[in-house]
Parts: sequence; structure tokens; C-alpha cells
Amino acid sequence: MAPTLKGGDAALLPEFPRGPLDSYRARASFSWKELALFTEGEDMLRFKKTIFSALENDPLFARSPGAHLSLEKYRELSFLRCKRIFEYDFLSAGDMFESPLKVSTLIQCLGMYDWSLAAKYVLHTLIFGSAVFSSGSERHFTYIQKIFSMEIFGCFALTELSHGSNTKAIRTTAHYNPATEEFIIHSPDFEAAKFWVGNMGKTATHAVVFAQLHMPGGQCHGLHPFIIQIRDLKTLLPMPGVMVGDIGKKLGQNGLDNGFAVFHKVRVPRHNLLNRMGDVTPEGTYVSPFKDARQRFGASLGSLSWGRVVIMAMAVTNLKLAVSIAARFSATRRQFGPTEDEEIPVLEYQTQQWRLLPYLAAAYALDHFSTSLFLDMVELQRGLAAGDRSARQAELGREIHALASAGKPLASWTAQQGIQECREACGGHGYLAMNRLGVLRDDNDPNCTYEGDNNVLLQQTSNYLLGLLALRVQDGARIRSPLKSVDFLDSYPSILDQRFEVSSVADCLDSAVALAAYKWLCYLLRETHEKLNQEKRSGSGDFEARNCQVFHGRPLALAFMELMVLQSFHEHVHRPCVPPSLRAVLGRLSALYALWSLNRHTALLYRGGYFSDEQAGRVLESAILTLCSQLKDDAVALVDVIAPPDFVLDSPIGRADGELYKNLWGAILQDSQVLERASWWPEFSVNKPVIGSVKSKL
Amino acid sequence: MAPTLKGGDAALLPEFPRGPLDSYRARASFSWKELALFTEGEDMLRFKKTIFSALENDPLFARSPGAHLSLEKYRELSFLRCKRIFEYDFLSAGDMFESPLKVSTLIQCLGMYDWSLAAKYVLHTLIFGSAVFSSGSERHFTYIQKIFSMEIFGCFALTELSHGSNTKAIRTTAHYNPATEEFIIHSPDFEAAKFWVGNMGKTATHAVVFAQLHMPGGQCHGLHPFIIQIRDLKTLLPMPGVMVGDIGKKLGQNGLDNGFAVFHKVRVPRHNLLNRMGDVTPEGTYVSPFKDARQRFGASLGSLSWGRVVIMAMAVTNLKLAVSIAARFSATRRQFGPTEDEEIPVLEYQTQQWRLLPYLAAAYALDHFSTSLFLDMVELQRGLAAGDRSARQAELGREIHALASAGKPLASWTAQQGIQECREACGGHGYLAMNRLGVLRDDNDPNCTYEGDNNVLLQQTSNYLLGLLALRVQDGARIRSPLKSVDFLDSYPSILDQRFEVSSVADCLDSAVALAAYKWLCYLLRETHEKLNQEKRSGSGDFEARNCQVFHGRPLALAFMELMVLQSFHEHVHRPCVPPSLRAVLGRLSALYALWSLNRHTALLYRGGYFSDEQAGRVLESAILTLCSQLKDDAVALVDVIAPPDFVLDSPIGRADGELYKNLWGAILQDSQVLERASWWPEFSVNKPVIGSVKSKL
Repeated sequence: MAPTLKGGDAALLPEFPRGPLDSYRARASFSWKELALFTEGEDMLRFKKTIFSALENDPLFARSPGAHLSLEKYRELSFLRCKRIFEYDFLSAGDMFESPLKVSTLIQCLGMYDWSLAAKYVLHTLIFGSAVFSSGSERHFTYIQKIFSMEIFGCFALTELSHGSNTKAIRTTAHYNPATEEFIIHSPDFEAAKFWVGNMGKTATHAVVFAQLHMPGGQCHGLHPFIIQIRDLKTLLPMPGVMVGDIGKKLGQNGLDNGFAVFHKVRVPRHNLLNRMGDVTPEGTYVSPFKDARQRFGASLGSLSWGRVVIMAMAVTNLKLAVSIAARFSATRRQFGPTEDEEIPVLEYQTQQWRLLPYLAAAYALDHFSTSLFLDMVELQRGLAAGDRSARQAELGREIHALASAGKPLASWTAQQGIQECREACGGHGYLAMNRLGVLRDDNDPNCTYEGDNNVLLQQTSNYLLGLLALRVQDGARIRSPLKSVDFLDSYPSILDQRFEVSSVADCLDSAVALAAYKWLCYLLRETHEKLNQEKRSGSGDFEARNCQVFHGRPLALAFMELMVLQSFHEHVHRPCVPPSLRAVLGRLSALYALWSLNRHTALLYRGGYFSDEQAGRVLESAILTLCSQLKDDAVALVDVIAPPDFVLDSPIGRADGELYKNLWGAILQDSQVLERASWWPEFSVNKPVIGSVKSKL
Repeated sequence: MAPTLKGGDAALLPEFPRGPLDSYRARASFSWKELALFTEGEDMLRFKKTIFSALENDPLFARSPGAHLSLEKYRELSFLRCKRIFEYDFLSAGDMFESPLKVSTLIQCLGMYDWSLAAKYVLHTLIFGSAVFSSGSERHFTYIQKIFSMEIFGCFALTELSHGSNTKAIRTTAHYNPATEEFIIHSPDFEAAKFWVGNMGKTATHAVVFAQLHMPGGQCHGLHPFIIQIRDLKTLLPMPGVMVGDIGKKLGQNGLDNGFAVFHKVRVPRHNLLNRMGDVTPEGTYVSPFKDARQRFGASLGSLSWGRVVIMAMAVTNLKLAVSIAARFSATRRQFGPTEDEEIPVLEYQTQQWRLLPYLAAAYALDHFSTSLFLDMVELQRGLAAGDRSARQAELGREIHALASAGKPLASWTAQQGIQECREACGGHGYLAMNRLGVLRDDNDPNCTYEGDNNVLLQQTSNYLLGLLALRVQDGARIRSPLKSVDFLDSYPSILDQRFEVSSVADCLDSAVALAAYKWLCYLLRETHEKLNQEKRSGSGDFEARNCQVFHGRPLALAFMELMVLQSFHEHVHRPCVPPSLRAVLGRLSALYALWSLNRHTALLYRGGYFSDEQAGRVLESAILTLCSQLKDDAVALVDVIAPPDFVLDSPIGRADGELYKNLWGAILQDSQVLERASWWPEFSVNKPVIGSVKSKL
């Protein structure tokens, strides 16, 4: 049974205005409203509508066509908007607990409007807030209330100017002084300045600062988090001993004030140590529930995963926005045609379909995976909160860590490449700032490098898989995990005997075909395992041996991740509860994402013998093109499902009415000084250059 | 014999400051000065130095750390700087004729400083200027003098709001009225507004406008160029009937004022028709030296190629700047290491080498090709100017058109992807605007879409190759071309019988191996030819049949182009005149670019049987990594050759002294208001939000 709207509330999913997109909408194989309801459910659609309507109706959030905000002004606006989000209070603590997914939805909705705002809000409430909550103890809970009333404003300070990925090498120190029961927080030099810290540049009053904990006896217990006030609450001026500032303009997200801080022997009370993982007694004795620093680090993996899971959702959101803009553009932009007199929409060209539709499919598939990983993460977190210390809980933590560590790279890169493709697919108009593809690219970009550089993170996932295989080889242990993501690897030697046996394009149009091929790609696991052993046998140390990511660990982690995303989406679209009218289109999306991704690995499929003749490669290519052509009439309806309202999407060429040129022309003329003569006109008219006049000076 | 500097003029290539890059520089296998002299020659080095020094010593060109220029201010600055370039008069007309390559060098030098400036200068002098020169006749030469004295300022107006690639569908009209001997230039509606025109937004006084020429009798003779005054020379206000304005902010190149113009029955004198290709007599008779519109269009291919050749050089320049920044960063940024106490430069990691060094090699290889194509183009142009109407001249035009039409996509995409990789490889610091990778990405971006969208252009090249093959198949004609680029295709059936016969990595380290494999990739030509015939046999029209770019025409054109670049570089580095001390490093660059590019086609090599066992793929991968590791100690010296002076490179993390953190920290503190409290501080301290206060309104 297809879900339908209760009580005739058609306002939730209103009709689109009539216009040039009508013909594609009329040709769609399914109802976009049905798919929207099926994908999100009425409750979530209503929640999103509440947020979007609030923003659209509030002048503080007004879009200013062609506005050229200064850095200062943009940061002010982002701060004011962030404050207003508190006034809207879209989600109470109770709502969050009941429906954690709404937290993710709120972030995505704010991000669809503007990532600077979303980041500012998330860094304060979630990153700073949950650092205090999860690393601190009861004595710190007073901060939580102050966070949610915005009495204080927070940031999370781990990275330093000269250290990011290698957190162990962080150089800020915290020396305990039992005489005053204080820690002395100190930056040895400017290279140890806390750096890149979001919200620190202009707004934060408090920071969770990571520093090496030194005891009076000289012993160092490694990195620990401290909560430190960096600005005065009344004046927003820096606290004594703190040099805090703004790191300046970035490629994107310039409404967010990233900053730096140098601490000059700043004294903070003993109870400012966030002491969940390790504490210091008044007399100066170090106590920890963990045996060693390594175990303590392991326990913090869970919170690292959170960041990556959230970034996955952020990247997918960007991909959705970009592909919505490009698909509507392509359905209305006409260029060339079979006859001189008739021009056809560029979406009718095979090349344009192949450039865009796989990214549309990827947006659906990655969105589904990202949501389900978010829910797995919630389960993990609830277990932790309930004090679950079971082996399953620990295994679940490791599995989710592995999934998030490859999921973030896959999603952020797919978004990066997809946005670039969308921008190019819209030609010159994609290069106009007002059409928003540039902002999306710039705002998505840090997703590729923060919370762990993508290439570095992939190593976490390949190491996880290699570890499982090593246990199996050495101890005969079965390969399995709580979410069953790795269970298929248990039969890996026999999988490698399988061969591609599809000979017709028609047989290839279900994602099951790609699923089987992807499982065979555990070929990469064997290759990497053998490579590692070979390196070790030749006397390389662990560090050198692992330096074989390029053609081994890296593609292994990515292929594994693509399989995870694909498998999850494949199962989703084949569930019995899928309304019959949606099965065809969802099945095609799944198959297109699958085959398009798989096509990146064709060389390996041939090399390892899974593919053997020319036909295999040809079938794969034909199937991709067939799916593109089957999906092109559904493309507009598919983006109607994922695109936010025009106000939020904020792109003249991507508006729902499809009036490409009218919208563009209108927006151009709305810009300031568009028809005005340049103020410096006499520099042309009067001050003529004397050719070669300064040449003699050369 | 290695070239040496005359007269002890060591100031031309001064020593670099001592610092953290010393150790890599000391380990380099060659002298960077020797390579610089070998690659560019003393005369060109001196010319570049003259330009760079002039800019560095002129306060008008001062870099303003962290400046946040408004659009208006940036456009003013670009105009003033453009004017100053006329005052410097770096190149006289005589110099240009004697050493045309210096024109390209001048553009690249200005572009290394700022592409907005370079574009502004080039659009006026070269694009507008050469349109008048090559499309006009003697009666228009008066404009040329006015261009070079900047009495007028020009732009080139072809594209309209609703038409770019399909120039035949341009809708601006020019109706001839014999009574007044005038053309009436008219835009039927805003969709036909001239759009995207560089320099038109604020500065141009004149435009070359393309319009459909209609005769009094009603006949239309297609697109013709007219020179039209759009602004008053004294006031810079629009001329009557011209609505001209600025299209607003773009993703990059915002110092350039792109604009639009709508013509409302603007009357221009008959002699404003640029009449080289077609003219109208006073009485209203159309005359043309060409038989039909198609032939007339063919004759203009040459000038289209110019744009593409120049864009190639622009893209390569961007790639050089980006890899210079990323390589120096990677040689000085340390993260992790084999032991706890020792951190190693990230350039020592295999992944980082593989991410950056192939792009460094690509910069060298593409630079060489781009220069030689420029010189071929000069030859073509000289032939045209001398009235050469030979078959060889026509063939040369077609060949260069095919090379430029794929060269521009290959170079612009390589730069696009390379800059993105460099930005990510520099982690967070690559995301800081001051480090310039963002500007490079944004300024390079239009290279992918203007002067013909890359995907559309590739079709020109594949059509050229398919046309040659068809002639051979039908008429037995030999495949050959003036520059010999396609001659190898003549033996294509026998090439397809060849197989990869290299079994050791060592044998793979010369670019000859990849060269042979690339020639075998004429597999794609056969596949595409057969696909096309198959489509035609199944009844598809020409238009539909050609709609098979994705897995056929597109990769065919790209692989062909990679082969051209590779072959040219391979021959260059194997010439006897290469100084012995440079042979090893140049050979490695050639081999790395070759194998890295080839690796994109491994799937086809297996599929078509050129590769047959697992070993082939493994050897290829190992060879790439071996070359990376052989080149990593040369990387810094290699970028020392191609990087401009620090002032021009303008990136704290890419400075020649390698003082990564000092430079970064210094630049951060130079920014305005960096330590200052935000002006809106009371919005935090006093105006506290009341949580949920506006919720009730929802």
C-alpha cells in the first residue's frame, strides 16, 4: 500500500508551478509525492517544512540577490541567524531523544540554506556540547545548560598549526600544580597555536582544548581535554594570557569564523579537566578507568565516528542540491537538435545523461546508507550510555568506525566530483555565482579533509578488513560483525572462483549483477594481504609495510564501501513494502549507481579473471547507457523529491518552475549597480595611458 | 653541451634562500638552473624576469594580504593594472612578429599574477583585436591603432543568454537598409541578449557583435561580425538603443567584468560589417569569396583554434602554480613517522607522491605540447596571411583544429583535477584562501567550458579521426597529416595485433612502453567506427548515430590526445641535445606521465587483449610507484624550475624559503581585524536569545 497524505493536507507537498518542466513531469513513470512520502514519511516532511517555512518567512534569513557580503558582515549575519535558531527551538531535548534522526535532518535543512550557519550551530551545540557531555562528568553538566541557553558559546580545539592528522604529536601542554590545584595551559610556540577552530575566530567564549597532561613528577599522560574560557562573557574580549584571533578567508563557509589561540601560561582550575577518561586528584595523582593510553584512545573512537557520520550526510545533501540544479537546467536548456529548426533539451543527449544521472542515483543510494549508518550510530551510543561493555558493543564500535572512516571519503568525494560535473554540465551559467554551484563546491570541500583527511581515513577501513582476514588466516576465526557488513568475506576464497556470466544487457539491469561483482572484488583484500606479507617478509617495518595504500589499501577500502552502500540500497529497493509503482524507478537508480561505480573497477575485474571477454565490458557499458536513457524522463520528478523549496535551493537556473532564462534575467537585473556606469569611468575617458611611458624604467 | 648563463648574469636565476627545503634541494639529481635554461632559454627567462620585476616593484600591483576586495574595487584595480600594462609596453609589434611565443609568455606571466588582469588584457588586444584584424578589411585597420593606444576598449560578443555551443542558433539580427546604408542591429528578446561577454560589463566601448545578416529581399546569410560602439568614449555611458550591464559575480576571475547587451534597433553604418568573409554592397547585394555558408564557416576554424591553444597554455600555467605550492608544502609539512619521536615530510608517503608527482609530470609534458602547438598555430597563421590556399594548408588547419579541440579539454581537466588534488593534499591549509589554491581552481574553471564545452569539443576530434578512417576504408586513402600526428593510424589493423610483452618493472620505466600501448588504443577508433556503422545500419540518422560519445568518441579523443602529448614529450626528452645530466629526470617525468595516463585505460587494454595476465597490470602499477619514488627527491628542484617568484606565486605555504609556518603565521597576523573584537559583540553579550521565543509563531 502506498502511503498517502492524512487529512487532505496537500499543502505539505504542493503542486509545482506550470512551465517548461511540465513535459518531463508528465512523462515521469511515478508520482514524486508518493516517493517523497515513502522515502521520508509524513512526520519528517512536516518537520522539514516547518524549518523551511520559518526561514523563508523571517527577514533575517532573506536571500539578497547578488549580495556581496564582506567577511565581517557575513559572520555577523551567521551569528544572528544562529541565535535565531535558538529562538525557534525547532527540536526540544525530548524530540531529539525520541527521534534522533531529526537532529540530522535539522542540520541538513540548515545546511541546505547555508553551511556556515549549520556549521556554526553544530560546532557549538553538538561538537562542543557533546565533547563536554561525553568527556566530562557531572561537575561539568552546568555547562550543558549554559550551552543550550547560549549563555556561553563554544568551540572544539584539537588541531594545531603544525599538527592535524597526527593528534598524538599535539604540543599544547597542561602542567598540574597541586599547590593551587590548577593546570597551566601553555602553547610552547606559534606552531602549537590551536588552529582552524570553528567559532573561535570571533564568537566563542569557551573552548574544549586538548593538551598533553604533565604531572608534577614529570610524567606525561598524553592528550586530555580541558574546558577553558577564552573570552569575557560581557565584553567578548580575550581572557588574560589568551591570544585569540581569526584565521581569515577560506575557500568557503566564510560565515563561520575559524580561529586560532595561543595560550601563555593560562591557569585553569583542576575541575576544568574533562575527566571521563582520566582525572587528577587534588594532590596530583593521575587516575584513569583505562589501563593504558592506547585503550583510552580506543574508547574515544565512538565520538570520532560521529563527526564522520554527520559529514557523510552533509556531503550527500550538497550532492542533492547540485544535481537538482543541474537536472532542471538540463531539462530546460535546449541546444542543437536533429533538424535545423528544432532544438532539444540537453538532457536528451547521451553524454549529459551519463554526466548527471549516475550522480542523481548516487545521491539516493548514499542518502539511504547515510541515514541507516546514523541510526546504527544512535544504537551504539545508546549502548555506551547504558554502560554496555559487551564484546558485541566493542565489535559494533569497531565496525561502525570502519564504515564511517570510508563512508565519509566516499560521500565527500562523490559530492565533490558530482558538484564539479554539475557545474560544468550547466556551462557558463554554472559559473555564475548566483546559481549556487560554486558555493556548494566551496562549502563541500572541507568535507574531504577535515575530521580526518580522506586518504588517511581509508587506511582505517582497510586495516580493519586486513585485521579480520589475518585473524581468519592465523586462527581460523570466522569473519563476522554485528551489522553483518563483512560476513560475506568469510567465504572469500570461493567467491574468487566466481565468474561474470551475464551476456545480455537486459540481464544486467538489476543491481544484483553488480553486487556479485563487488563481492568478487575481495580480490583486492587478498592482493593487499599478500602485498603486506611480502613487504614484511622483505624486512619492512610495520610503518613501511603499510605504506602501500595507493593500489591496495585505498581501492580496497573504497570498493568495500561502495559495496556497503550498494547492498544497503539494493535491499531497500527490493523490500516487499516498496509500493509497486515505485519499484521500477528505484530499481533503476540502484542498478545505475551500482554499474556506474563498478565500472571504475573494470580493469581489476579483467585482471583477476572475473571478466574474460570483450563482451563483458561492452555489456556493462551498454547497461549503464540503457539505464541512463530509461531514467532521463524520471530525472525531473526524482529531483522534485529531493530538492528543497526554491527559497532554500536559491538558484535561478534550478527553480521548480523551469523558467530558466526569466529567472536568470530577473536575478541579474536585481543585482546592485548592474546598469550603472563604473565609478572610475574617468580612468578610461580622461587619464589615457601613454604607451611605453614606464618602459624606460625597466 | 649544457647551456650556461652568459656574462655571469647569476641574477637571472638567483639562489633560493636557505631553509627547510635545503635537504630536498641538496638531494636533487640535477641542477634546476640548468633545466630552466634548457627548457626556456636565456632570452625567455630574461623576458619573464622583466615582467615579474616590473609588477613586483609597482605599488599598483602590490599584493594586499588578506584583502577582501569588493567586486567594484577589484574591477577598478584590474582596469588600472591593464592600463599600466600598456604603459609598460612589454612587447612591441615588432617583438611579437619576431618571437610570437613571447605573446603567450606575456599572457602566462600576467595570468600567474592574476587571471582577471590577463583575461582583460587578452580579450581587448587579442580576441577583440584579432577579430577586427582577421575578419575585417583595410577600412577597419583604423580600429587596430585605437586598440593599441587604448583609445577604445573592446569585447567579443557571440554567446547569447540562451545560446552558446550552438552558434548557428544565435538570434541577434542585422537587417540591411540600402536607403540609409545602415544595418539595424536588434535583439528580438532578452533570451537573445549577448551574454557572458568579457569586458562588456563595465569597460568596453566597442564590441564585435555576431548577428544573422538579413538582406532587404528577406534572405538570411547567417552569422556575420559587426563592430558596434556600445558606450560613449567620453562618458562611458551606453549608446542610444544599447542596454548594457554587468552579469555579476562569478565563481572566479571577478576582476573581469563580464556583461550583457540588448540591442534595440541600433543603426550602424554599412562599413561596420567586418567583411572578410562576406560583404554587402551599398545597394544591398551580398557578396562573398566563399561559395556557401558551410565553407565560410570552415575558413573561420583557424581563429577558433587560437582561443583553444591559448586556453591550453592558461590551464597548464595553473597546474604549474598549484603543484609548486603543493610540492613545497609536502616537502616541509611533517606528520607521523616510523618512530614516535620522528616525523617525516608528507612527501615521503607513497600516497602523497602518487597524488602529486604525476601532476608535476603532466605540467611538464603538457607545457611542452602546448608550446609546440602554439608554434604550429603560428605557422598556420603565417600561411593564411601569405595567402597560401594549398591543400596542405587546409589539411594543416584541420589537423590543428583537431589537436586544439582535444588539447583544451585534456589540459583544462588535468589542471582542474590537479588543482583539486593539490588543494586536498595541503589539507586544511589548502582550504585557506591566502594559500591561493582556491583562486587557482576558480580561475581555471571556465577553461573547461568556454570557447566550446570540453565534452562538445572532443567530438570535433573524434569526428576528425573517424573521417580519416572512413576515407581509408572506403577509398583506400592513406592516413596522414602535415604534422604527422595521425600517420601511425595508417597501420592500425596490424597495431591491433600487438601485445604487451614487458614482464619486469625495470623495462617499464621508459615512456616507449606506454607509447606502444597508446598506439594500440586505436582499438577505440575501430570500436567507434563499428559502433557508428552499426547505428547507421539500424536506421539512425547522423544526429542520433553520433550520440555515442560516452564510451566511444569521448575516450577515443582523449586517448588520442594523451598520445599526442606523450609522444611529443617523449621525443623531446630523448633528443641528443638534452644535456646528459638532465636525461634521467626528464625521462622519468615522461615515463610517469605516460604510465599514469595509460593506467586510466587499463580496462580497455585487458578487454581488447593487449594485456592478458595479472602480471601486466601489476607491473604497470609498480612502475608508477617506482617512478614516483625516484622523482620525489627531485620534486622540489622541479618546481623551482616552473614556479614564478614568491611575489607572483603569492602563497605562504608555497614560498621558496620553505618556512611554511612562519610564512603562514605572518600572513595571518597581517590580515585586517584579525585580533579585533567583532563589531557586533553586544549581540552576544547583551541581546540574549529567549529559547523558543518565536516557536509559537510556527
